[in-house]
Amino acid sequence: MKETKKILLNSRPEGKPDNSNFKFDTENIPEPKDGELLLKSVYVSVDPYLRGRMSDAPSYIPPFEVNKPIKSLVVAEVLESKHDNFKKGDHVSGMLDWKEVQVAKGEDMMKVDKEKAPLSAYLGILGMTGLTAYLGLTEIGKPKEGETLLVSGAAGAVGSTVGQIGKILGLRVVGIAGTDEKVEMLKKEFGFDEGINYNTTENMREAIKKTCPDGVDVYFDNVGGDISDAVLFNINKFSRTVVCGAISIYNETSIPQSNSVQPFLIKKSSLMQGFVISDFADKHPQGVQQLAKWLLEGKLTYTETVEEGFDNIPQAFLDLFEGKNKGKMVVKV
Amino acid sequence: MKETKKILLNSRPEGKPDNSNFKFDTENIPEPKDGELLLKSVYVSVDPYLRGRMSDAPSYIPPFEVNKPIKSLVVAEVLESKHDNFKKGDHVSGMLDWKEVQVAKGEDMMKVDKEKAPLSAYLGILGMTGLTAYLGLTEIGKPKEGETLLVSGAAGAVGSTVGQIGKILGLRVVGIAGTDEKVEMLKKEFGFDEGINYNTTENMREAIKKTCPDGVDVYFDNVGGDISDAVLFNINKFSRTVVCGAISIYNETSIPQSNSVQPFLIKKSSLMQGFVISDFADKHPQGVQQLAKWLLEGKLTYTETVEEGFDNIPQAFLDLFEGKNKGKMVVKV
Repeated sequence: MKETKKILLNSRPEGKPDNSNFKFDTENIPEPKDGELLLKSVYVSVDPYLRGRMSDAPSYIPPFEVNKPIKSLVVAEVLESKHDNFKKGDHVSGMLDWKEVQVAKGEDMMKVDKEKAPLSAYLGILGMTGLTAYLGLTEIGKPKEGETLLVSGAAGAVGSTVGQIGKILGLRVVGIAGTDEKVEMLKKEFGFDEGINYNTTENMREAIKKTCPDGVDVYFDNVGGDISDAVLFNINKFSRTVVCGAISIYNETSIPQSNSVQPFLIKKSSLMQGFVISDFADKHPQGVQQLAKWLLEGKLTYTETVEEGFDNIPQAFLDLFEGKNKGKMVVKV
Repeated sequence: MKETKKILLNSRPEGKPDNSNFKFDTENIPEPKDGELLLKSVYVSVDPYLRGRMSDAPSYIPPFEVNKPIKSLVVAEVLESKHDNFKKGDHVSGMLDWKEVQVAKGEDMMKVDKEKAPLSAYLGILGMTGLTAYLGLTEIGKPKEGETLLVSGAAGAVGSTVGQIGKILGLRVVGIAGTDEKVEMLKKEFGFDEGINYNTTENMREAIKKTCPDGVDVYFDNVGGDISDAVLFNINKFSRTVVCGAISIYNETSIPQSNSVQPFLIKKSSLMQGFVISDFADKHPQGVQQLAKWLLEGKLTYTETVEEGFDNIPQAFLDLFEGKNKGKMVVKV
């Protein structure tokens, strides 16, 4: 094989991205040098956060460059290894270009084991989704057995994983979601103790009080806004709020206003902390190991949507914004 | 001596407290039992937070009871000891009743050394003021040499101590206060690098950016509200906000609104944490020791107002609300 297909950023999207923002091209495949691997993409992750990297607005990760390849989390097979830790036939995951075949440094790749879990799981429950849930909850939330965990955006890929991990760790777990179906799913599929449908609940503050009678010790926040305002009235002394997402206020054009958190934080000696998953990069291998163990033991479940074909990667990404996926969206190359 | 004077809560204040809320009485002095000390009050601390304990609204500390003595931090002399750690003539500090003489458990008292610092200092710079500044800054703020520390309410007793400790620890320190005189004092008396007068500054966000050109790593927040909203735009990755007070919004009758903090916390992997000084009770002795050392070395300065006479304790307390004190207010019994 001498050439590989690749997908480049063709132009920066204004508003919702479309196919014109992507460009297909080919390039020659270089020889791997010492310490490098020749890799064949097997599963490619498409994620909403990639939209942010397509813009050049300042953010916590640098933007993609126009006419350069898009990158995301990829599971790949080792075709040739010049790094001692890997051999031909191994599978790895890492941030890789959208290419069928490419060369990468072995030190940037993590070996994954297809005996322990399906390879696609390393992009979701054993990838960023699972690590965000596990490390956000454990490193910032610091949950203790018997405490109450409240999760907003609970039916999402991260939220549903957070709730399941909460149950494994012996917490009372309550989830907030937007439809009765989702609330049912939280309880039946993911083992949450209680759920709240914020769209049909008039008084969120009271609903949280009722479902969390001992108060909230850990709040895993995916939404911000009014829901998080209501949570403030129910936090316990020494409670921890894991600020993971603020989906309810991302698209507001002016700076959104909410209840001042300071008096609540003082009264309850309470902590709020934001994070991105790269903050805990040194804990990723241990996190994946723990998640894989729980998955193997049948303690964790997840949903995913698998599209097929390298050429369909951009469309799978665009489909995310139409809500065509259920759970984690991946493309089998 | 058989009898002691004492000061009781006569009634709960509505709005601003006055003399009618206090009542003088006498009682017989009991004999100290095993483990107890007979104590003579030397300096009594009067503090704004006592106003909260005079009400019966729920708070982080239980309210005073009507017809029971008011309590505050007191430095006392040991008249008689039935506890191995103390002897006659020692001085101690602790939460004690407003009485001239009383019996207390030795285990609740901390020995203080009048050779190391004036006894009144144990109520301020070596008491709650100093501990609030030192433990809030070090335990939550976790400052590192070379970082930038921003302090709001910087001219107050806590704020001016925070700034001085920041300088001792090798930080760039910027203070926010409400008059040009206070800003001058921050720089001349307390060694702050820069000051901002929020009453004469139109664009706080820009003023903070200008005085903190490398961004804010630690924000010690005594005020909340608009000032803290402006700080959010200037926080650095992994910054820590020590939420110590929210004086600007305590008296609002409805729940005050501010910029939603969540998007800022996520973008900067940033932490906000509230506290009260009792959260760090196990670290008080070490804190007092460190503060006393800096005081002895001339690295810390403070101001205090000393009133005289046991009978003047209520008036000294009331004077706090008229701003008659400069720095920490104490009464020499």
